Amino acid sequence: MELLYLAPLAGVTALVFAAYFMASVLRESAGNAKMQELSQDIFDGAMAYLNRQYKTLIPFALIVFVILFYVDGYKLAVSFLVGAVCSAIAGYAGMTSTTKANARTTEAARTSLNKALSVSFRAGAVMGLSVAGLGLLGVSLLYLIFDRDPVVINSFAFGASAIAFFARIGGGIYTKAADVGADLVGKVEAGIPEDDPRNPAVIADNVGDNVGDTAGMGADLFESYGATAIAAMLIGNTLYPQNGAGAIFPLLLGAAGILAAIISIFLVRVGKEGDPQAALNRGLWGTNIITAFLAYILADKMFGRQGIGIFIAILAGLVVNVLVGMITEYYTSHAKKPTRKISDASRTGAATNIISGVATGLKSTAYPMIVFAIAIWVAYNQAGIYGIAMAAMGMLCTAGMVVAVDSFGPVADNAGGIAEMAELEPEVRKTTDQLDSVGNTTAAIAKGFAIGSAALTALALFTAFSEEVAKNPKLAGLLQNGHLVVNLTEPTVIIGVFLGATLPFLVCALTMEAVGKAAFEMIAEVRRQFREIPGIMEGTGRPDYARCVDISTQAAIREMVLPGLFAVGSPVFVGFVLGAKALAGFLAGVTAAGVLLAIFMSNAGGAWDNAKKYIESGQCGGKGTAAHAAAVIGDTVGDPFKDTSGPAMNPLIKVAGTISLLIAPMLFF
Amino acid sequence: MELLYLAPLAGVTALVFAAYFMASVLRESAGNAKMQELSQDIFDGAMAYLNRQYKTLIPFALIVFVILFYVDGYKLAVSFLVGAVCSAIAGYAGMTSTTKANARTTEAARTSLNKALSVSFRAGAVMGLSVAGLGLLGVSLLYLIFDRDPVVINSFAFGASAIAFFARIGGGIYTKAADVGADLVGKVEAGIPEDDPRNPAVIADNVGDNVGDTAGMGADLFESYGATAIAAMLIGNTLYPQNGAGAIFPLLLGAAGILAAIISIFLVRVGKEGDPQAALNRGLWGTNIITAFLAYILADKMFGRQGIGIFIAILAGLVVNVLVGMITEYYTSHAKKPTRKISDASRTGAATNIISGVATGLKSTAYPMIVFAIAIWVAYNQAGIYGIAMAAMGMLCTAGMVVAVDSFGPVADNAGGIAEMAELEPEVRKTTDQLDSVGNTTAAIAKGFAIGSAALTALALFTAFSEEVAKNPKLAGLLQNGHLVVNLTEPTVIIGVFLGATLPFLVCALTMEAVGKAAFEMIAEVRRQFREIPGIMEGTGRPDYARCVDISTQAAIREMVLPGLFAVGSPVFVGFVLGAKALAGFLAGVTAAGVLLAIFMSNAGGAWDNAKKYIESGQCGGKGTAAHAAAVIGDTVGDPFKDTSGPAMNPLIKVAGTISLLIAPMLFF
Repeated sequence: MELLYLAPLAGVTALVFAAYFMASVLRESAGNAKMQELSQDIFDGAMAYLNRQYKTLIPFALIVFVILFYVDGYKLAVSFLVGAVCSAIAGYAGMTSTTKANARTTEAARTSLNKALSVSFRAGAVMGLSVAGLGLLGVSLLYLIFDRDPVVINSFAFGASAIAFFARIGGGIYTKAADVGADLVGKVEAGIPEDDPRNPAVIADNVGDNVGDTAGMGADLFESYGATAIAAMLIGNTLYPQNGAGAIFPLLLGAAGILAAIISIFLVRVGKEGDPQAALNRGLWGTNIITAFLAYILADKMFGRQGIGIFIAILAGLVVNVLVGMITEYYTSHAKKPTRKISDASRTGAATNIISGVATGLKSTAYPMIVFAIAIWVAYNQAGIYGIAMAAMGMLCTAGMVVAVDSFGPVADNAGGIAEMAELEPEVRKTTDQLDSVGNTTAAIAKGFAIGSAALTALALFTAFSEEVAKNPKLAGLLQNGHLVVNLTEPTVIIGVFLGATLPFLVCALTMEAVGKAAFEMIAEVRRQFREIPGIMEGTGRPDYARCVDISTQAAIREMVLPGLFAVGSPVFVGFVLGAKALAGFLAGVTAAGVLLAIFMSNAGGAWDNAKKYIESGQCGGKGTAAHAAAVIGDTVGDPFKDTSGPAMNPLIKVAGTISLLIAPMLFF
Repeated sequence: MELLYLAPLAGVTALVFAAYFMASVLRESAGNAKMQELSQDIFDGAMAYLNRQYKTLIPFALIVFVILFYVDGYKLAVSFLVGAVCSAIAGYAGMTSTTKANARTTEAARTSLNKALSVSFRAGAVMGLSVAGLGLLGVSLLYLIFDRDPVVINSFAFGASAIAFFARIGGGIYTKAADVGADLVGKVEAGIPEDDPRNPAVIADNVGDNVGDTAGMGADLFESYGATAIAAMLIGNTLYPQNGAGAIFPLLLGAAGILAAIISIFLVRVGKEGDPQAALNRGLWGTNIITAFLAYILADKMFGRQGIGIFIAILAGLVVNVLVGMITEYYTSHAKKPTRKISDASRTGAATNIISGVATGLKSTAYPMIVFAIAIWVAYNQAGIYGIAMAAMGMLCTAGMVVAVDSFGPVADNAGGIAEMAELEPEVRKTTDQLDSVGNTTAAIAKGFAIGSAALTALALFTAFSEEVAKNPKLAGLLQNGHLVVNLTEPTVIIGVFLGATLPFLVCALTMEAVGKAAFEMIAEVRRQFREIPGIMEGTGRPDYARCVDISTQAAIREMVLPGLFAVGSPVFVGFVLGAKALAGFLAGVTAAGVLLAIFMSNAGGAWDNAKKYIESGQCGGKGTAAHAAAVIGDTVGDPFKDTSGPAMNPLIKVAGTISLLIAPMLFF
């Protein structure tokens, strides 16, 4: 049997395991009637959001489909659709499992920590395996069906990108509007605790956790996965055309990653007094090590003597993964100096808290960028431009596990909310809190992973873009010795860099303003319900949860359009009006500025969050002090930083890359 | 007579007029004994700071001098020293005139608005003409003396850069430490008004206005002036070597700008009920129009038929100047929507105020970047790479007037402080306040000018750098058809871009933290004095102003070292370790990210400031409301944004350029 068939096989295997885990989650009891009702509300809210989101995107997708069909034939058009649909399916699968798992995790927490970890983590694994499985299956089947030509399937990546961009931005707006609305009116104005069922925005808030962290992150990494695989195949196809080795190898790497993830999922379990963090770390390390081992064997088999260089490039990607996670952890954990400094700065008020947080976020960009630089250097020196794609693929083939570990977080978070709302015994909440706090750490790791993979994916796309431009006969004048030369000393290129670097700043601003607008509507609605629904504060009147879910949904859908148009439109504008070289400069600018802003925003937000938690744990004066009030302001500022604008940067830099790759053959100067 | 001699002649003329204005300021009465004492304290504080700053820089300057002497001969070494010394002289001259003019402006305000405007603006003109005069004189004399070879004088720009970087950062830290210390303890804790003589930090605060806005801005624009002139001469020397036309023309343009500024200075006057803003605008527009007129004549004379293209490039620079000023004004004026939105967001608390301000700042980057892109495109299409240098020079030859208009601000500000501290009749304060509020607008225009000119200067330096690299025989392998090719598709170049874009983020973080540390020391000292000096609150005990001046000075000097080392060290590291191409990428990254952060930080800070002022004018609830408290927090956050970190970006991107230009002949791969 040809090795290539391992790829769709691994994809199917991943999906089978996903189905198995889904079934095993659904077999668990969802607890008492109240718990089931809450869980159903969250599930309904999540589905309502997804339905609305995808429905909004259908016209956009159809327009792109028609354009691609008309301009480039059915293969590109079909691939685009497959990419978009696979992303959507992964989103539905993941959201179903996590929103079905929340009450079941709460119920399991009544038995044991291990049981609760098992339920929530298996729910996360459904998402993780769906992302990796659908990604690999989609790309490898298209490759097989469409005559093994990676060029005609590159629109798969664009399909995934488009969905991811809207999912990330829409999800980010949704979750923060709900969060701010629930907190500001519920906690601050009405003085009721978090996750209180009297709060009309409480369901929207719980839905938001899933919409943001599960669907958003899943779509983001699905995109990275698909885009990197295709970029690597394109480059490999040019450099190692013999037997299609260069194009097939990235798919095999994906298969190796899935195998590693499935094995490692079974390493995630704790004893009676065990540490869930250690269990998840075991899963992550297991995936990294098994992947590296398999990658070595595969590289050796496919490329012989050249294999070792390619293997080292893959290893560079895996090391980036680990290091960026550690750096993220350092800058955002309240056990470390930077966040403690922010807690300390809160004593002198909100202004010093904010300044300290901004400074920490800005500073935290330096080490990751140096890590990227070294990884690029190593990968390129070991295996040329193919090496850069391999570093990205090395990082991304572990996505199955990373998404699993990340998606487990919102499940644990929701489980705690349900325990609260259903007024279960406090021990249950204690168990879910233990899981939830682990979820915060794994979320930080996943964020680092998402940024790092976006950076490497963007570079791989950039490289693939220049290879495709080199094949465009109309652009032959831009080549030297068959390679595209984008000379930075030409003002057109510099203009591209300037405009490209500006786009992330603009998208950050637009998404931040969108959260403000959406939160404002939510605040008004929550206030209205508190005012108008009789008996709501006494717990006798039922709040209109669905209305709040609706507001978040509508606002998210509405506000994602403008940044989306900028993201999709500006590379097209630059490419056709200023030319291919300017577009290359544009991509470099988008990537550099986008990655920097992503790190800045995510880490500043994470650090503010944990600085507040550190104070709440009794340090720097503790809850109720002026320092705490200052830290709450920082945390609120950090919310759109870390959950909306920062995460929006990842799909932004990738969508710029995938759309450029797509239009590369159409550019005419 | 050869036209070239007009340049030193214009330089000398500028200095003669500067001396004349200085004398005319000193002739005015400095008011009563109390006013004279306060003025003397501010003068002493300013001089103490400048002395300490330059003393600290002497070892650094000597080391560079010795290295240059040893590596490249006496011409480069001497030019470096002349650049540094001219910058220092301009700093002393400007600071002397503005700190001597403050009490005289207060006294003049007892007579009439026009008198007060005349005194304060003439003091500003001393700074403006010193900057332009010394810049043009220094460059043109070195050029004449050193055999008309612009290559051996390019270290003049580096000398100016090094001073500017430290002056900007040191000045920025100084002014904010004093400001925060004075405000937080004096206004908030002790409840005494601003500019109250009982506040121990009040003199330091007044000194800070001069150190930041006059000395910092002056050094910044002196640097832009010198660096642009030299970059333009280097490029011109290569492209239009005949009769040295290409090298001489930038100097003549400088002479034209000085003539235009001197004429226009006399346009700045108001009648009894006149509008000082209109008077200053007349000065600015006069300078632009006269410069454009003279530029047309000169370009036609020097370049004949090609002259029109060069003239259009110059015009592009002048238009950038006007447009960026207008955009800055739009985003930061409280008469406009963006700032009003921030005021409005303050109603829902500090968090929404901060988010709104950050979003405004981020958004405000888009139009200026588009303006730069169009200007680059026009200039390049009209006159090639020389056109880009010409756009920069066109903008900068008006620096004399812009600095004059900007430096007038702190004089008016200080004059108001002195009126307050000397307990003069309220009408005096009203007059100075009128001038002060105009000063805020002109400061915004000058900030836009500084950023815009830094961006164009950096591009001119970048272009000059690639021309110099092309002449380095060791780097012949990087050339194609005699031109340097920096191919963005090579990973080394991308690594350069990544590292370059990171530097501004890091320097922002370091300077922001530095302000925090310095302010913390100041707060402790002011609290100590309130506690320990008997009768200080009753006005019978004299606060120890000098001690506060000392703390700001020491902190500023200490904290400027680390960012300084990063700024100077990293281009050297990248150039020698990663090579010339990576360094080119590095410069592009530094410039793009630096300009974006500069605009973001400056405009966010300006908008927060004016959003607070808008509320204080009685809107959105007015003073004393929760909205006002929120706006005060935003304003405090904005202080280091707009006065320390943001302004630090300008010299950062230029120092990276000048040092790269300097080491270009030494790079070996």
